[in-house]
Amino acid sequence: MSSQQQAQPLLIVGSVAFDSVETPTGRADMALGGSASFVSIAASYFTQALVVGVVGDDFEAHHMARMSDHGVDVRGIEKTRGKTFHWRGRYHEDLNNRDTLETALNVFQHFNPIIPEAYRGTPYVMLGNIDPKLQLSVLEQTKGARFVGMDTMNFWIDTAREALHDVLSHVDLLFINDEEAMQLADQWTVLGAAEAIRAMGPKYVVIKRGEFGSVLFGPDLTLFVPAVLLTNVVDPTGAGDTFAGGFMGHICKTGELTRSNLAQALAWGTVMASFTVEAFSVDGICNLSREKIDARHRQLLDMVRY
Amino acid sequence: MSSQQQAQPLLIVGSVAFDSVETPTGRADMALGGSASFVSIAASYFTQALVVGVVGDDFEAHHMARMSDHGVDVRGIEKTRGKTFHWRGRYHEDLNNRDTLETALNVFQHFNPIIPEAYRGTPYVMLGNIDPKLQLSVLEQTKGARFVGMDTMNFWIDTAREALHDVLSHVDLLFINDEEAMQLADQWTVLGAAEAIRAMGPKYVVIKRGEFGSVLFGPDLTLFVPAVLLTNVVDPTGAGDTFAGGFMGHICKTGELTRSNLAQALAWGTVMASFTVEAFSVDGICNLSREKIDARHRQLLDMVRY
Repeated sequence: MSSQQQAQPLLIVGSVAFDSVETPTGRADMALGGSASFVSIAASYFTQALVVGVVGDDFEAHHMARMSDHGVDVRGIEKTRGKTFHWRGRYHEDLNNRDTLETALNVFQHFNPIIPEAYRGTPYVMLGNIDPKLQLSVLEQTKGARFVGMDTMNFWIDTAREALHDVLSHVDLLFINDEEAMQLADQWTVLGAAEAIRAMGPKYVVIKRGEFGSVLFGPDLTLFVPAVLLTNVVDPTGAGDTFAGGFMGHICKTGELTRSNLAQALAWGTVMASFTVEAFSVDGICNLSREKIDARHRQLLDMVRY
Repeated sequence: MSSQQQAQPLLIVGSVAFDSVETPTGRADMALGGSASFVSIAASYFTQALVVGVVGDDFEAHHMARMSDHGVDVRGIEKTRGKTFHWRGRYHEDLNNRDTLETALNVFQHFNPIIPEAYRGTPYVMLGNIDPKLQLSVLEQTKGARFVGMDTMNFWIDTAREALHDVLSHVDLLFINDEEAMQLADQWTVLGAAEAIRAMGPKYVVIKRGEFGSVLFGPDLTLFVPAVLLTNVVDPTGAGDTFAGGFMGHICKTGELTRSNLAQALAWGTVMASFTVEAFSVDGICNLSREKIDARHRQLLDMVRY
């Protein structure tokens, strides 16, 4: 593939939600959230993002505009009668733990992702952190995809392990944090967890650990990228989704799964996630300048330039 | 300084102890432990290590030989009547936490480190994880030192904060793990903690986080080195001391505090620590071949070769 090739689009299936978040230093009410929102805005800096999701009739034009203003194709977001998925949570003092105060699935409860005909040939697919049964349904509809990434969380490991294993056996890459990786794999080390998860199906596993960076495991390949070190962490919500968006966006842009491209994908995911946590909702990743993104990318790689 | 210069010796003051350790998979009884033992054996692969410490009359020739067989100068280890410092602990299932079952200070209770006249001009000094009051006493006796590193732990942060601050204001580098760094600095992020600690005195701070690597903070300098990823973690005891030994050993060997040397010091500390955790006591770092050490060093740096 030539480096002059056009970026390929990224199909994203996930939640589009309202988040109400309390942190030790502030709060946001009914702000745009959901995995598909974070993934798509992050990916939009690298490629064309196409979103399939569902919202209620309380989801207004200005909410949709936060995505479409970034060139995200939102025609796959179905608007239906009822209320948009609403999550309410409160972070602990250290921002590493949170309590869910309310999860109102609302219209998301009956979400049945139908991939529009025009999207079915999309080569790159990101399965946001939703019920593995829905992820399976998307996989059924996107069989020609070249590369499928997925995210998941402890809730699905606890409650839908069988379906989760089914999804894992069909995807190319899993994004997961370290504790969840160890839980999923029943292992005590990151390396042990990564090997066990790769044996479940995905050729690649990306294990994340907040401000201590992330590791990608692949065939004869282990790549480590540190995190951008920040002092002003406002709200971690969406950091993982944003990471996936930056990572997948770079893969869509470059096309090839070389060592170098995968390392750069980790770096871009890391950079985009660092902006997310500096503000509530998607505020940190909206309307970023190329200069600001590139400066942080240099700052990141400088830490491993010996 | 020429790259052909001779390695400078490293003076190490710390505990020499017997450790009795239980892990989920095994145990060691009355095995060689203590900060000075781990630091000196690790450093011996890079330079001449000189130890000042105290042991009891139950400390036999074969215990001492584990250090001296590596060329460690043990003439500064005073042998006195009574029993050697004995620590007994049990690790939890995940090896990240442990309970202290017994701490018998024994002869260490009256330890008053007297630096032999011949050692007082040693340019590089490592203050092992002991009472800050003892660390201060060593500092008084080694005023001409070019570079002083120190280690500490939550126990001293809790019980001897004032003396600890006094030590910090006189050393060049602090080794500390991430949780303890945040506790010491009363900060919620690694970066915030590092900045606050550097304001307390040390020009450099190395913050460690087990299998997620370590970060060095210095003047206009942030360097990150991942950890060697292992599946066979047997006993984490001494990993931090070993890290310090490899780090300081490399600095003694190379002499200059350049970006490149500091990064390599982080890497060598990481490599040596990875051997320690693969076995009980000092077994993992005794009689290592240069080939084995170098192979692991290459494996480590390969993770950040993009």
